[in-house]
Amino acid sequence: MESEELPTSIKDLPTPCLLVDIDRVKRNCSRMITRYKKIGVELRPHMKTHKTIEGGDLMTDGTRRKIVVSTLAEAEFFAAGGFDDIIYGKPVIPSQIPRCKKLQERCTQFHLLFENEESFYSLERTPLENKKWTVFLEVDIGGCRTGVPWDSERVIELARLASQAQNVEFKGIYSHSAVAYTKTSETALRGQAKLDTQRVMGVCDRIRQAGIAVDSVGLGDTPSCSVIDDSMANLTEVHPGNYVFYDTQQCGTGSCTMDDIAVRVATRVISHKPEINQIVTDSGFVSLSHDGLSSNLPNGIAVFQDHPELRLQRVTQEHGCVSVKSGDIDCRAYPLDSMLFIYPYHACATAANHPVFYVHSGDKVLGTWKPVKGW
Amino acid sequence: MESEELPTSIKDLPTPCLLVDIDRVKRNCSRMITRYKKIGVELRPHMKTHKTIEGGDLMTDGTRRKIVVSTLAEAEFFAAGGFDDIIYGKPVIPSQIPRCKKLQERCTQFHLLFENEESFYSLERTPLENKKWTVFLEVDIGGCRTGVPWDSERVIELARLASQAQNVEFKGIYSHSAVAYTKTSETALRGQAKLDTQRVMGVCDRIRQAGIAVDSVGLGDTPSCSVIDDSMANLTEVHPGNYVFYDTQQCGTGSCTMDDIAVRVATRVISHKPEINQIVTDSGFVSLSHDGLSSNLPNGIAVFQDHPELRLQRVTQEHGCVSVKSGDIDCRAYPLDSMLFIYPYHACATAANHPVFYVHSGDKVLGTWKPVKGW
Repeated sequence: MESEELPTSIKDLPTPCLLVDIDRVKRNCSRMITRYKKIGVELRPHMKTHKTIEGGDLMTDGTRRKIVVSTLAEAEFFAAGGFDDIIYGKPVIPSQIPRCKKLQERCTQFHLLFENEESFYSLERTPLENKKWTVFLEVDIGGCRTGVPWDSERVIELARLASQAQNVEFKGIYSHSAVAYTKTSETALRGQAKLDTQRVMGVCDRIRQAGIAVDSVGLGDTPSCSVIDDSMANLTEVHPGNYVFYDTQQCGTGSCTMDDIAVRVATRVISHKPEINQIVTDSGFVSLSHDGLSSNLPNGIAVFQDHPELRLQRVTQEHGCVSVKSGDIDCRAYPLDSMLFIYPYHACATAANHPVFYVHSGDKVLGTWKPVKGW
Repeated sequence: MESEELPTSIKDLPTPCLLVDIDRVKRNCSRMITRYKKIGVELRPHMKTHKTIEGGDLMTDGTRRKIVVSTLAEAEFFAAGGFDDIIYGKPVIPSQIPRCKKLQERCTQFHLLFENEESFYSLERTPLENKKWTVFLEVDIGGCRTGVPWDSERVIELARLASQAQNVEFKGIYSHSAVAYTKTSETALRGQAKLDTQRVMGVCDRIRQAGIAVDSVGLGDTPSCSVIDDSMANLTEVHPGNYVFYDTQQCGTGSCTMDDIAVRVATRVISHKPEINQIVTDSGFVSLSHDGLSSNLPNGIAVFQDHPELRLQRVTQEHGCVSVKSGDIDCRAYPLDSMLFIYPYHACATAANHPVFYVHSGDKVLGTWKPVKGW
């Protein structure tokens, strides 16, 4: 849309577009803040879901301190926006050191993850002026992505290497299991949170037993951080991100209810095709994403608000082909040009596709948030 | 990346990033131009894959005339960039009329699709100054998305309605079958192109037999437009789009070879995980997209250049988990921080995720293209 004037009502917005319910965002943020204040664990929210200054403000309770980011572009964006104490949440590689050096100069605290000797030495060989690089050892506690396996001897070796360095300061342990995403009840989630905590605290104990100081032990992912197992009080910090918006995938894990989902895609009906039992909306994969196509959720990749009978059958670039779960579709129930609202399967994937978010309270559009893009 | 200086060599680019091979783009564009010049059919390229002024220039042979767009944001962007004779390639809905009116004022020719009475009357009731709305009837020739079914009586009724209007001029027929995407050989593609042409020309004949003039009959999609069936010479125009880049999905249909693919995602190795037979790259779903996950192509959603042994097992937001098709991975063959190049499954979906494209010739980075985003 050529931005001359922002409509005051959701019903006048161009579609497809991403709606952010500010009241639900605030509630999601304050619940997570309260939850971890109560057990004395620091909340270091991940910015990857929204990537906006405004969202970061709400997640950090206005402090703009202690965040995690998923790209260096995010780190630069948030640092320029006055945020500090930032962890870049992927293992650093040597070619990124020039950009990381600039971030170190700009921030009071900018931390890196490492999980191998090569990247560690590339930092050690590049001293900073007046400060040290600060690093967390990334530990794989079962997510099978990056990180040193939690049960390997290498966690000790690498922690020792960092603790004895000249130009690098060893801060502690960073982990992101994400196994909790495979759970389907709050009880199962709590069990996973307990197991994750046990594994990461076990690594911490082994490193401390080797005589190495560990300042911080962190764990993340929205599903396990949305419930609390008592053992989590032993952690130093947690770093969930998705909870700012939540989504239907999260509902499937038991980490939230549909009423917590703060983000929807608004779409309009552009075609009636009764002969093939279908209506077509203007929301295709560019505004929704393909994420969740292989999911086992009953509604597939999208849930239509107030229309449990609808099923998104297929998305092409800018078309959504929608049918009903059983029987024939009654097109009159979905008038041409009328608006439908889709709860996304994965808010991170859907939000990543939108250059602007429309922030609203009830039906009233309050303004826009502009996320940082790129890498 | 904070854009201070553009690296001159691909190897120094930040990753992940989208690479556009300008020589291949030019070759793809000129082949399509030549192909349709030869048979006297107008080429009206679709802009949805690249969404850039530079790509539009190459696809229109510098004329900046005769294009299709997938969103009104694209229409506004290309009109502002001096493009004209633009079709908005989705059925218009009444709420879009104010923006379409502005586009009508800005362009000499801006055409809309319609496929129902309601949208038609909303145009007819909104006269333009000094000109008429120009419309194409969208016909569904088997793609089962939007459009009036090719074999229904409604094609005649709607064409008659438009041809008798006061404020609307009936231009002809627009169709996009996309059934060709299900084919797996050039022969099968040619058969589909023949069937698509037969159906759309059949609609044209029936409308003409009803005494209604049809100026233009158009057909689209890259797979069928990349081969030529003789009958296609009867068409007025074709409107493929993906061929500017092509991709591995297109290779699977037989519409191009791997050597024609002009777009790749550059990614770097960020982790070695021999214990779980995996390396991890910095390209997740935000830089690649999930499109193709359900495909039957042997390499799944991504093909690694010069590394046919690799398979992308899983993508999360910013991580790509890569393994080998059989046996154990030899991590030494993919050094940490080394660059790998991924041919995307669906270039439209992948390009849509990138805020900037890095244009290169061989290893040399020539500049950037910035696509329009949003709706």
